[in-house]
Amino acid sequence: MRRSDREITEKSEIVNILEKGDSCHIALCDGDTPYLVTMNYGFEWNDNLKIYLHCAREGKKIDLIKKNQKVCFSVDTGHELVVSEKACGWGMKYKSVVASGTIEIIENNADKIKGLNLLMKHYAGGTDFQYEEKMLQATTVLKITVSEVVGKEKK
Amino acid sequence: MRRSDREITEKSEIVNILEKGDSCHIALCDGDTPYLVTMNYGFEWNDNLKIYLHCAREGKKIDLIKKNQKVCFSVDTGHELVVSEKACGWGMKYKSVVASGTIEIIENNADKIKGLNLLMKHYAGGTDFQYEEKMLQATTVLKITVSEVVGKEKK
Repeated sequence: MRRSDREITEKSEIVNILEKGDSCHIALCDGDTPYLVTMNYGFEWNDNLKIYLHCAREGKKIDLIKKNQKVCFSVDTGHELVVSEKACGWGMKYKSVVASGTIEIIENNADKIKGLNLLMKHYAGGTDFQYEEKMLQATTVLKITVSEVVGKEKK
Repeated sequence: MRRSDREITEKSEIVNILEKGDSCHIALCDGDTPYLVTMNYGFEWNDNLKIYLHCAREGKKIDLIKKNQKVCFSVDTGHELVVSEKACGWGMKYKSVVASGTIEIIENNADKIKGLNLLMKHYAGGTDFQYEEKMLQATTVLKITVSEVVGKEKK
């Protein structure tokens, strides 16, 4: 990244941003045309960072992922407007995580449940949920395997 | 869009979301690899919607825009977690605007000032600001000309 003064290098700080984020954005390419969508997410970070998303069985992003699995993911938190008398003194504080990698559609139920549990852990703070077979069939779970992750903070 | 029950068709409602948004996301394609960045924005919507962004003179997005001007833009507001006893009852309320079009680097100072004034109108609520020549030279102003815009609301 160009502005190394804004880089967050500590994994714990990046995890903290991922924990606080209330939604993520993912970008895909439709040929050479970008496509952008807001989604809910869960994650786990053992050897490498994996992000889980869920959506309906059909839709544009499913069609695109089948053709090109490259993805860019971002979460940002802590937006705070900085005001000033001069235009160039205005700004926005933020903390962000931008990750790139590949995205895949999870096919088997055990892995789908794992992903859904990580989503529930993120939003509900627990994983004590049951998933009916009918609901699992109606839901697509997506997994991003992250190859590069960058944390940033503008203070 | 697939979920027509969530579509916002009124221009005034889409403008309302754009007015309330505190930042936007833009996606670009680097060949067939997506790139995603969070930015501040301003806009005007006469015949068609135009979105203005600003950034430094150099950086990855500038390099990408010089090669491929296709862009996807999104703003979302009103996030509100919906809790439930059952996992499938959880959800997130939101209002969003997703726009696609082309992005260009504005070269002349009069148009740059127009874009910066629209940014300041969005964040500061006024346009009574001066821009020093040195600051204008150090700033890149980008303009998105929108070809398609979709408003969505999940209640």
